[in-house]
Amino acid sequence: MQGLYLENRRLTLRNDLPVPHPADNEALVRVRLAGICSTDLELTRGYYPFAGILGHEFVGEVVESPDPALRGARVTGEINLTCGKCAACRRGDSPHCENRTVLGILGKDGCFAEYLTLPVENLHPVPDTIPDEAAVFTEPLAAALEIPQRSHIRPADRVLLVGAGRLGQLIAQVLALTGCALEAVIRRDSQRKILEAYGIATLTESQVKAQNYDLVVEATGSPGGFELARRAVRPRGVLVLKSTYAGNLTVNLSSVVVDEITLAGSRCGPFPPALRLLASGRVNPVPLITARYPLSDGLRAFEHAARPGVFKVLLETKA
Amino acid sequence: MQGLYLENRRLTLRNDLPVPHPADNEALVRVRLAGICSTDLELTRGYYPFAGILGHEFVGEVVESPDPALRGARVTGEINLTCGKCAACRRGDSPHCENRTVLGILGKDGCFAEYLTLPVENLHPVPDTIPDEAAVFTEPLAAALEIPQRSHIRPADRVLLVGAGRLGQLIAQVLALTGCALEAVIRRDSQRKILEAYGIATLTESQVKAQNYDLVVEATGSPGGFELARRAVRPRGVLVLKSTYAGNLTVNLSSVVVDEITLAGSRCGPFPPALRLLASGRVNPVPLITARYPLSDGLRAFEHAARPGVFKVLLETKA
Repeated sequence: MQGLYLENRRLTLRNDLPVPHPADNEALVRVRLAGICSTDLELTRGYYPFAGILGHEFVGEVVESPDPALRGARVTGEINLTCGKCAACRRGDSPHCENRTVLGILGKDGCFAEYLTLPVENLHPVPDTIPDEAAVFTEPLAAALEIPQRSHIRPADRVLLVGAGRLGQLIAQVLALTGCALEAVIRRDSQRKILEAYGIATLTESQVKAQNYDLVVEATGSPGGFELARRAVRPRGVLVLKSTYAGNLTVNLSSVVVDEITLAGSRCGPFPPALRLLASGRVNPVPLITARYPLSDGLRAFEHAARPGVFKVLLETKA
Repeated sequence: MQGLYLENRRLTLRNDLPVPHPADNEALVRVRLAGICSTDLELTRGYYPFAGILGHEFVGEVVESPDPALRGARVTGEINLTCGKCAACRRGDSPHCENRTVLGILGKDGCFAEYLTLPVENLHPVPDTIPDEAAVFTEPLAAALEIPQRSHIRPADRVLLVGAGRLGQLIAQVLALTGCALEAVIRRDSQRKILEAYGIATLTESQVKAQNYDLVVEATGSPGGFELARRAVRPRGVLVLKSTYAGNLTVNLSSVVVDEITLAGSRCGPFPPALRLLASGRVNPVPLITARYPLSDGLRAFEHAARPGVFKVLLETKA
């Protein structure tokens, strides 16, 4: 089958990949639509030494499944494959399974291909009311929802979002649902336009007031956002860290101690609320689609996704 | 001026009321539209021995104001008049001011009249994008928002709402924004229809599973809802109490201890997030309007509001 294969930081389009063989607890899924995430771009830059088929945001249809109820179903899937036995799994924190593999990121081939396999417990049927173009955002929307899952955001809170890129836009929509006084730092007019269409206030970096926000979300996807986010949060406020990227950051952690800031890392989130918000239309990610390429044009799609100001680029697999 | 006056549990329409004289820090507001709340009905039943003009949900326009910026502005208003000096005010809990009066509820004439007065600090200008029919819901929507203001509702939580009446409907909309797995207990088909139009799942009392919900909101406005809500919440879950009514309730509090339930009373809430959610359209209360009467027909409006299955009844004051 066809797929985008990463090895030694080099992404290639291959036509010689075998259709994956599902394990006993796994379903075989034909990919319909997949989304390119900043993490995919970071993986090609060496964020993590992954070798295999890239990609972890998808909607597809089940071809084979040990659970007959899933056969033929349109599904999206959780990306962490977990053991169910380690301490993290037993305390209900399965995304932190000590023995996990992760779709298209760690020890498991991903979704930028014609087919993928995932354990049936990872799959979520997609309600008919959600089109493929929205369903393909389930995984990043779930990741955005991990922020209110972990941190109590109060309707009266002043909240700043640093980073209005592809994930930042979804985070903005999730934060706006709380009713909080939300402002999003923008770098480009394209970011401002789309946020304003969603009724979300924007400002530029120079307009951010120091120590002014109860909660700040850093989602720039690069080291540059941290200092601004750190400066904006009030003493005893919460700073949510959402960016993952290659490389380290030099930080003055003493100021975090002195101001009693809570730093909250946040990664994968819950799928069922993401599907509920998509089904009810309370979150609508479709305007975030910048471009759509056939899988066979995947390398061009990656180049497009890496350009500044681009939101979501999708890869389409023809049936 | 004309107004609905309560004395000894008897509500009368009076035409001989003086136009109120604003205190130094107060504005005079001409009422445009006001909403009848279950608390108003409870006051006529003796929930609290209030004598004066009833009503606390309104949108109006400022006629006189010591703050010139407010003159002519369309406003809604917070209902607690506070001293700014007591312990509660100093710790930022002004709705719990020890010396407070409350619009149309406690020691302060309310909004079921042609004019009212309120301190300028209580007034919130209404953005032009919010029509009167939506702005009149600001106060009860703020009260609904006090639930996520006080309690952390997680997107993955299972949440039950007991009571889908006039306040319950607004609470349902607020809870749905979190993405939580929300179910609302309905008693009537009219409640089911309107919830389903908002994409909110409903069930009947007999379908509620015991100890199944992370968080339960009791908003029936009557003593009957507590037992069901108590039974539905899981051990270590949260039970939010939103009903205020005349009379007491006999409760087995030992079971609350044994199951380590958190009971969280919840009253007035923050106005700015309510206005933000109305302005962005993320909450739309207009379909909850059952009927609209001129103030001169106020007694008939009260009879209508007291009928089972009726949502919001509005009182209109002609300019």
